Amino acid sequence: MSKKSAGSEIERLVQLLARLPGLGHRSARKAALTLLKKRADLLEPLAAALTEAAAKIVECQTCGNIDTVNPCTICQDPRRDQTMIVVVEEIGDLWALERAGVVSGLYHVLGGHLSPLDGIGPDQLNIGRLVERAAPPATEILLALNATVEGQSTAHYLTEQLHGRGMTVTRLAQGVPMGGELDYLDEGTLAAAIKSRRTL
Amino acid sequence: MSKKSAGSEIERLVQLLARLPGLGHRSARKAALTLLKKRADLLEPLAAALTEAAAKIVECQTCGNIDTVNPCTICQDPRRDQTMIVVVEEIGDLWALERAGVVSGLYHVLGGHLSPLDGIGPDQLNIGRLVERAAPPATEILLALNATVEGQSTAHYLTEQLHGRGMTVTRLAQGVPMGGELDYLDEGTLAAAIKSRRTL
Repeated sequence: MSKKSAGSEIERLVQLLARLPGLGHRSARKAALTLLKKRADLLEPLAAALTEAAAKIVECQTCGNIDTVNPCTICQDPRRDQTMIVVVEEIGDLWALERAGVVSGLYHVLGGHLSPLDGIGPDQLNIGRLVERAAPPATEILLALNATVEGQSTAHYLTEQLHGRGMTVTRLAQGVPMGGELDYLDEGTLAAAIKSRRTL
Repeated sequence: MSKKSAGSEIERLVQLLARLPGLGHRSARKAALTLLKKRADLLEPLAAALTEAAAKIVECQTCGNIDTVNPCTICQDPRRDQTMIVVVEEIGDLWALERAGVVSGLYHVLGGHLSPLDGIGPDQLNIGRLVERAAPPATEILLALNATVEGQSTAHYLTEQLHGRGMTVTRLAQGVPMGGELDYLDEGTLAAAIKSRRTL
């Protein structure tokens, strides 16, 4: 009796939706029902958007971003500051920086961070291409990696690899985030904020 | 500068995903990235499953369930108990009962509950068809509606509508849920559990 009502097509849809991050099995069922209810308004446009994405979106062979063109729009943009390459772990980080509109330079997406226990060594990341790109007109490589142990050890490794190529290698400042209340901040952040204190 | 990196195709995909229940804008972006990373493994199958669902899945004109056939598999199943019709608010409720495997009879999906403030009156729900179905071989109508104010007032309305058609109209028992700890239960549940107490 069980599941017969759902039909294998619906069950398959639920199972695929449940593999998206943020959706458990229960919420995947809700999502499937919403899709089937809003057929013309949501299901069909989503199917079309996915099909179009599968057909059109490619990885930028220069920086590792995804876009409909290769090299991507950012790499092709002559108004971008060609002297600076901002290195990020994931494409999501690149999007976050673009949304903030705070980077005038180019990007380089590593595709993760070094994590020997998970079998992620330098060869699994997009590092070779970064070392190639570390040449004029680029003069500065900004390592915008996560402030985690893995992010920092990746930054350390990259600094070594980039040594001797005439680049200024920089990293993001660490300290109290905007709106941050000292009482709620961890000790590491407080220590970094004190260590990097500035004269007013 | 902002959003150019994402490309309008990706942005559109994120916006559609964000309309699914359970996915905010941030998790929709994560979901889009996961889809684009696992292209052959997830994005293309999901696009295909959605296209197939849009093409194949129809509403059962008898009970309001969705399936690839009309009448749905449940309504067509001769092994089902044709004397009992279980009335639920939403298809998700039908699925929950089917997963539990506790209903041997047929279903009827109302498509919601009465909610005058939201403009949901009897005409907006699948009630006319239920009254038609309340005839032999059916003998019992089980109102498996939510134990909410709206669910209960809908049950009240349905009981009136079904009056005089020779049906036994029943509702789900109310009480302490399995594994429920009294300390964590609301007063309404406790009151119902005491009121409906059983002799051992």
